[in-house]
Amino acid sequence: MTENYIDILGIRAKKASRELALLDSKTKDFLLGKMAEALEVVSKEILVENAKDLAQADSNGISETMQDRLRLTEERITAMADGIRQVVGLSDPIGQVDKMWRNEDNLLIGKQRVPLGVIGIIYESRPNVTTDAAALCFKTGNAVILRGGKDAYNSNKILTEVLRATLVVEGYSPDAIQFVDDTSHEVANQMMKATDYLDVLIPRGGAGLIRRVKESATVPVIETGTGNNHVYVDKDAQIDMALNIVNNAKTQRPSVCNAAETVLVHSDIAEKFLPKLEELLLEKKVQLRADEQAIKYLKSAIPAEEDDWSTEYLDYILAVKIVSSIEEAIEHINKYNTKHSEAIVTDNYFASQKFLAEVDAAAVYVNASTRFTDGLVFGFGAEIGISTQKLHARGPMGLEELTSTKYIIYGEGQIRE
Amino acid sequence: MTENYIDILGIRAKKASRELALLDSKTKDFLLGKMAEALEVVSKEILVENAKDLAQADSNGISETMQDRLRLTEERITAMADGIRQVVGLSDPIGQVDKMWRNEDNLLIGKQRVPLGVIGIIYESRPNVTTDAAALCFKTGNAVILRGGKDAYNSNKILTEVLRATLVVEGYSPDAIQFVDDTSHEVANQMMKATDYLDVLIPRGGAGLIRRVKESATVPVIETGTGNNHVYVDKDAQIDMALNIVNNAKTQRPSVCNAAETVLVHSDIAEKFLPKLEELLLEKKVQLRADEQAIKYLKSAIPAEEDDWSTEYLDYILAVKIVSSIEEAIEHINKYNTKHSEAIVTDNYFASQKFLAEVDAAAVYVNASTRFTDGLVFGFGAEIGISTQKLHARGPMGLEELTSTKYIIYGEGQIRE
Repeated sequence: MTENYIDILGIRAKKASRELALLDSKTKDFLLGKMAEALEVVSKEILVENAKDLAQADSNGISETMQDRLRLTEERITAMADGIRQVVGLSDPIGQVDKMWRNEDNLLIGKQRVPLGVIGIIYESRPNVTTDAAALCFKTGNAVILRGGKDAYNSNKILTEVLRATLVVEGYSPDAIQFVDDTSHEVANQMMKATDYLDVLIPRGGAGLIRRVKESATVPVIETGTGNNHVYVDKDAQIDMALNIVNNAKTQRPSVCNAAETVLVHSDIAEKFLPKLEELLLEKKVQLRADEQAIKYLKSAIPAEEDDWSTEYLDYILAVKIVSSIEEAIEHINKYNTKHSEAIVTDNYFASQKFLAEVDAAAVYVNASTRFTDGLVFGFGAEIGISTQKLHARGPMGLEELTSTKYIIYGEGQIRE
Repeated sequence: MTENYIDILGIRAKKASRELALLDSKTKDFLLGKMAEALEVVSKEILVENAKDLAQADSNGISETMQDRLRLTEERITAMADGIRQVVGLSDPIGQVDKMWRNEDNLLIGKQRVPLGVIGIIYESRPNVTTDAAALCFKTGNAVILRGGKDAYNSNKILTEVLRATLVVEGYSPDAIQFVDDTSHEVANQMMKATDYLDVLIPRGGAGLIRRVKESATVPVIETGTGNNHVYVDKDAQIDMALNIVNNAKTQRPSVCNAAETVLVHSDIAEKFLPKLEELLLEKKVQLRADEQAIKYLKSAIPAEEDDWSTEYLDYILAVKIVSSIEEAIEHINKYNTKHSEAIVTDNYFASQKFLAEVDAAAVYVNASTRFTDGLVFGFGAEIGISTQKLHARGPMGLEELTSTKYIIYGEGQIRE
């Protein structure tokens, strides 16, 4: 094996992860507190570096929305520091024994939470991911290798330098938090193959990034993020509740992964429901893309094309389709969804149970907005992302999802017969 | 994407997995019972096919040990059928809600066990893996694609045909259990990349197979099997207990992954312990490969080389090394082990706690043999393999490890503010 850049980072991270795994909660919390403090102390320097990224973004003609995601302010730095302090307040899963029993050989067997080891994160332009992810990984005793996007290079670099410097000042190895100081695709590809060093790789960003990582990585991946979500308005739905839920799922924050992209409406209720929905959504300037049947009830809609059923708009656009049964709705959802969040609105008991059982997604809702799929909202205290895969973690991932387990076994000399 | 052989199997498996996920436990158990019965009914035909594999193995000069692993008899077929019946007797994790709570929005959120979907298994010559794996996947509502080794081709083929025929006779899709009728590397490689169809790939076999899969697969993999395990005999060990445990861990069944390969002995106890260990192990014709210090206490040992510390012998060979402290023992283990099973023998409380905390492995034992790492022994009722990775499952995997989860959420019209 030839040594490459990621090997160097990986060797250091692995070493640091061994020390970090043994730190007690009090020490980890103390160091996290110091990191939060340090961010605020050097906020001026952080803003200088962030300004470089913003100037670059401007000259590259990057959209105002994207620039806003990139922009730091004193307030946003305080928010990042507070984010770290919030992690301090969470209880540490490491060391916890989830269950313990005696087996037939009278061995006392416990299943104990331990860190995963070294976590790689590949993400796009938001700099707050840097401090959030570093804090969550640190709290759970994991070393982290952070590879942010080119657009936020200077911001990410100084943020990690501040976190690392805090560790050094307090007498700990800075290698628990590492920054990939190279935004080339080549180094990202090295990360995806670094099975000797990385225990898991978490991509955070758009559908293109996720797909690239999924298709190339031999390191175990936790797929996050893309949400092509549906609200199905059943024939037995309460019209007002359905309007409220579709409106919220589509427009409360259209740019996030738990927003809805398609509404499926039962044909029995379409005539009553769709004109009211249009009225409501036009106030928010939502463009409707409807199938042949639905378009009859909608004044402003344009015809939906096949691609619309599989598109995550992340925008004020909603696809609309009429279905003739709950079975058709479920079939459509399982064909086109990204296994993120799905909702049914109904007063019918059997329809609700059928939808919960048969829809394949991380979170399936009855009579509630898909917008609730979120680690904080679920009560996990924090979130590193939302997994849309089935292995290891599914749905919002909190601290526990950043851990593995080991069996600790107490014997009195037992041997196997 | 060009359609390949695995695509065809994958599309069918995915479809079958949707039906299978909705079967109730009673129906699954009934069908498993029928499969067990069918194996016994057509045992003669199975033996005819197995004889072809054995004749081929013989003409290929395959060792008697390997031929024995391949060989079926009436008794062994009955044992396979009984293995399936045992799975019938286990409780079905699918549908179980592990926890359920109300969040701040008064949503009732439950975390429910669901099947993973489609599981791929790549394995080597033992035909009983075919029926074991098929039964465990079926019980947990997963479709399975089985790719066995070339040596057992005819045996695996008829075994899967019998299981599939049972499903057809009872009116169910046979595609829940699929056989890869092509033992080429090309098709194995297709499986490793089949991210559209496979939710997880489990390799079962030697270190070479595991490494090949780990390095090539983009489908999520659960790494199983290789065990370069250690017993550390601390200075405060009881000599008799230590002899008993090392002897058991090495010789009770040397060919399995939870056997020990190296004994680490504290220098303070080496002079008393090692000659007695040699006496005991020579009865079983164990070859000792010792480091410079240990060889002084051993009459029959040959010098250990660097490679010996990382070799999984799976044979009557034991590496022996003297360490001057528990720290040195832990460092050696964490450097060379495969994260499977590790044991300390000691009367010292703090040594036991330190070993449990600092050794990185799926199962860490105090005063017991490493041979206990096994799903049945742990009390899981069955085992699909022993995971040596940290993601999703670590250590012996029973039925629960073949499941994922989904959040089911009951609302009364809640929207996010």
